[in-house]
Amino acid sequence: MIKLKNLAAQICGRLVGDGNTAITGIAGIKEAKKGDITFLSHASFQKHLRHTQASAIILGEDIGPHDMGDQNCIYVKNPSLAYAIVAELFNTRSYKRKREVSELASIANGAKIAKGASIAPYVHIEDGAVIEKNVTIYPFVYVGENVTIGSETRIYPNVTIYDGVKIGRNVSIHGGTVIGSDGFGYAWDGEKHVKIPQLGNVEIEDDVEIGANVTIDRASLGKTTIKKGTKIDNLVQIAHNVTVGENSIIVSQVGIAGSATIGNNVILAGQTGVRDHVTVGNNVKAGGRTGITKDVPDNMLIMGTPHMPFKEWAKLQGYLNLLPQLFSKIRSLEKKLHGETDND
Amino acid sequence: MIKLKNLAAQICGRLVGDGNTAITGIAGIKEAKKGDITFLSHASFQKHLRHTQASAIILGEDIGPHDMGDQNCIYVKNPSLAYAIVAELFNTRSYKRKREVSELASIANGAKIAKGASIAPYVHIEDGAVIEKNVTIYPFVYVGENVTIGSETRIYPNVTIYDGVKIGRNVSIHGGTVIGSDGFGYAWDGEKHVKIPQLGNVEIEDDVEIGANVTIDRASLGKTTIKKGTKIDNLVQIAHNVTVGENSIIVSQVGIAGSATIGNNVILAGQTGVRDHVTVGNNVKAGGRTGITKDVPDNMLIMGTPHMPFKEWAKLQGYLNLLPQLFSKIRSLEKKLHGETDND
Amino acid sequence: MIKLKNLAAQICGRLVGDGNTAITGIAGIKEAKKGDITFLSHASFQKHLRHTQASAIILGEDIGPHDMGDQNCIYVKNPSLAYAIVAELFNTRSYKRKREVSELASIANGAKIAKGASIAPYVHIEDGAVIEKNVTIYPFVYVGENVTIGSETRIYPNVTIYDGVKIGRNVSIHGGTVIGSDGFGYAWDGEKHVKIPQLGNVEIEDDVEIGANVTIDRASLGKTTIKKGTKIDNLVQIAHNVTVGENSIIVSQVGIAGSATIGNNVILAGQTGVRDHVTVGNNVKAGGRTGITKDVPDNMLIMGTPHMPFKEWAKLQGYLNLLPQLFSKIRSLEKKLHGETDND
Repeated sequence: MIKLKNLAAQICGRLVGDGNTAITGIAGIKEAKKGDITFLSHASFQKHLRHTQASAIILGEDIGPHDMGDQNCIYVKNPSLAYAIVAELFNTRSYKRKREVSELASIANGAKIAKGASIAPYVHIEDGAVIEKNVTIYPFVYVGENVTIGSETRIYPNVTIYDGVKIGRNVSIHGGTVIGSDGFGYAWDGEKHVKIPQLGNVEIEDDVEIGANVTIDRASLGKTTIKKGTKIDNLVQIAHNVTVGENSIIVSQVGIAGSATIGNNVILAGQTGVRDHVTVGNNVKAGGRTGITKDVPDNMLIMGTPHMPFKEWAKLQGYLNLLPQLFSKIRSLEKKLHGETDND
Repeated sequence: MIKLKNLAAQICGRLVGDGNTAITGIAGIKEAKKGDITFLSHASFQKHLRHTQASAIILGEDIGPHDMGDQNCIYVKNPSLAYAIVAELFNTRSYKRKREVSELASIANGAKIAKGASIAPYVHIEDGAVIEKNVTIYPFVYVGENVTIGSETRIYPNVTIYDGVKIGRNVSIHGGTVIGSDGFGYAWDGEKHVKIPQLGNVEIEDDVEIGANVTIDRASLGKTTIKKGTKIDNLVQIAHNVTVGENSIIVSQVGIAGSATIGNNVILAGQTGVRDHVTVGNNVKAGGRTGITKDVPDNMLIMGTPHMPFKEWAKLQGYLNLLPQLFSKIRSLEKKLHGETDND
Repeated sequence: MIKLKNLAAQICGRLVGDGNTAITGIAGIKEAKKGDITFLSHASFQKHLRHTQASAIILGEDIGPHDMGDQNCIYVKNPSLAYAIVAELFNTRSYKRKREVSELASIANGAKIAKGASIAPYVHIEDGAVIEKNVTIYPFVYVGENVTIGSETRIYPNVTIYDGVKIGRNVSIHGGTVIGSDGFGYAWDGEKHVKIPQLGNVEIEDDVEIGANVTIDRASLGKTTIKKGTKIDNLVQIAHNVTVGENSIIVSQVGIAGSATIGNNVILAGQTGVRDHVTVGNNVKAGGRTGITKDVPDNMLIMGTPHMPFKEWAKLQGYLNLLPQLFSKIRSLEKKLHGETDND
């Protein structure tokens, strides 16, 4: 239990209502019951504001009192951030596993496991691997030779980490993800595809989160890099020698082809594809399923396949919608012209 | 071996030919040999009807005798269903594993395993999990804390089930699938992406089948739900707080973004994408690689990106094909008009 | 260390420079240091030729001396192939695992493991499986009943191979891949989807490489086939009863629907989709994210959704770019015509 006024203080919010209200949990705006705090997660839920059973609501300053009932409110500048903080207060999921190395793990003699690491049963760690303190490794994780894993990092079940991959601190890697598999490179010798050995590695910097069943290939030479603070959703493909900058957001089912470079603070929405050797600038935002085929300058908002500035894309959609009208206009122009001609 | 007349009776079919024919197996129309029963799986195979070596063919009532040779036939209303039933009769794959808990499984003391469950070697089950009777769990499956798995359910190898996930009865989950991984949610604090704790869970209802390497994220709050009888193909992404209704068909590589709601009896063909917070009505059918960007009313047949009614899409394709012609028409109109003007 | 002249001999290259130069490693053109050999991997790197610190460069005969500094060069006909060969010379990744069966592997009595096979800890092999000589199987691999795996094949961690799958010689299967899961087939009985038993299997021929988190479904009847020498990238979906011919290249996130047939020497670029029952001819090349909806004759270069010959697609893109201009032309035609009409 936490009093509403204390909660407001923690998120630097402006409290309107009874600060002594007891908050015992957090829930969605439709599901919330007495004792819960809730928040407005999406504009489409605004209609539920008047009817929620929640004991308090976290809101942006843009929501006026006329949209509301008489609930207790905390107004904040950044509702998403306030929600993240409050949700953590009520986090009852127990990430914490035993700080020990299971006897059922199979660990090479030459691997180094720091104190405070939690290694589950059925983890396999190869020679030369270095696991720093407070790392958590779930069952069925394969850690290849000379892999390094920084402190506080969590590796969920069934993850495969090939030899030589470097993983930073406070990284999360979700179930089924594969890091460091061979890049897709072959040379045609006239009769068959000859494999180009993939001799590079992968480097995942600090504070990166990687979703489930993602694939990140090792470089052919040099390294594939995911920089600090970037977040990658499920089922994303990152090919060999790609660099993804800092604090970027790569949404589910995006594919980034070989040697492409993605800048800092980029957002690639779901199912977007990036061609090989392309450079995407800083702060670029690509809408859902964009096909990025050429370099993109900084700060662009893009859409479509092949990609174009969002405004052009929107205009093009407008023209496409008018195509039937265009065809009938031309028919009437033709008629008119033929009519006049006939009259001559 | 089964006599053809008995087989016809089991699928309520109309037998034309020798009911005493011995059927010993099932095979495709091109591969079938004497003793096999076959069926017409796709219109493109109709040309093979006259030449199949099969001892009998299952057919829809729409196939006339003129398309055929003199083979034995069973005519049925629903050939696919008849095929499903006959294939089960000749199913020699041995799903049945030993009804025992392997000594090589690692099972927390607080987990409850019902009698008749089959737990393979190298399965890891956490505290508080409840496994009902006749559940089959293959090797390298991770079952998190407080997960429940209903009776008769099959979990194939290398599946990861995070804490708190609820799985119904008679569910199949194929290899490599991840259920209950964290939803993709962050709040930007001005300097970095702050993780929004994903406190909800996932509920898979009875009779659902989920393909290989699928990802289904847990809800941020509340639950991600897959309702009774829905079938999900390989490599599908289902984001946090999504609801998929009953008896829907989600084909391979579809991505459904956060908080989207999919109705009952929906078909989303391969590589389709659904935007976040969108509602797709009951009985909607989306063609391959549809980009669903807005709410879709019940019973619509849609196509394209952004999606539109199928008929509009087909019309638009027609107009696009005519674009070269359109441009030349305009050139000739311009000429004509200029010509007249010049003559003035 | 290897002398440059010896290296040139091995790749049948024309050496320009000091053949006694000692080469000690291989690196990318920008990262190379003294002692390294490098190569020109992509036209966009040509500008780095003058500035590379490499001790030698592998080049195609098309690169003239005016593009270069005074570095040692080896000119070859096929630079990619030369690179593949040289990279193998400097390959320090140690694929070689102990040639033994781990005591921590769980292997059914009826499975046959040839001498020289390397079976890691936490591998599970079912009854009737046959593992030929020099096969390498990494941890957390599931090998189902009656699976056969040909000599020299490598199966990376967390791979799932269902019962009855046949894998040829010298095949590589990367982490998390699932082979032989049930094809996606159901018959609607008026109330629910009835599963069509998937009784066929999968056959992977010799010299195939399959990336990470790929899914290849077993056939409903007969077999799903990947022929000799074909290479499949990460996160590809191959549905039941598909045939992929010899020496084809299937790039990441491609989806091939049921019963489609792909020819020999085909290239399907990333995110391409192939409709069910479609036949794609030999030597077809499909650009990124092509939507293949109908049969494609041999030797075609295709693009777009629905697919069309590349030249048509390029023309269509041109017309789409001219749409704004087209609309304004029509407006001016209308004005002109109305003006004339008004003057009458």
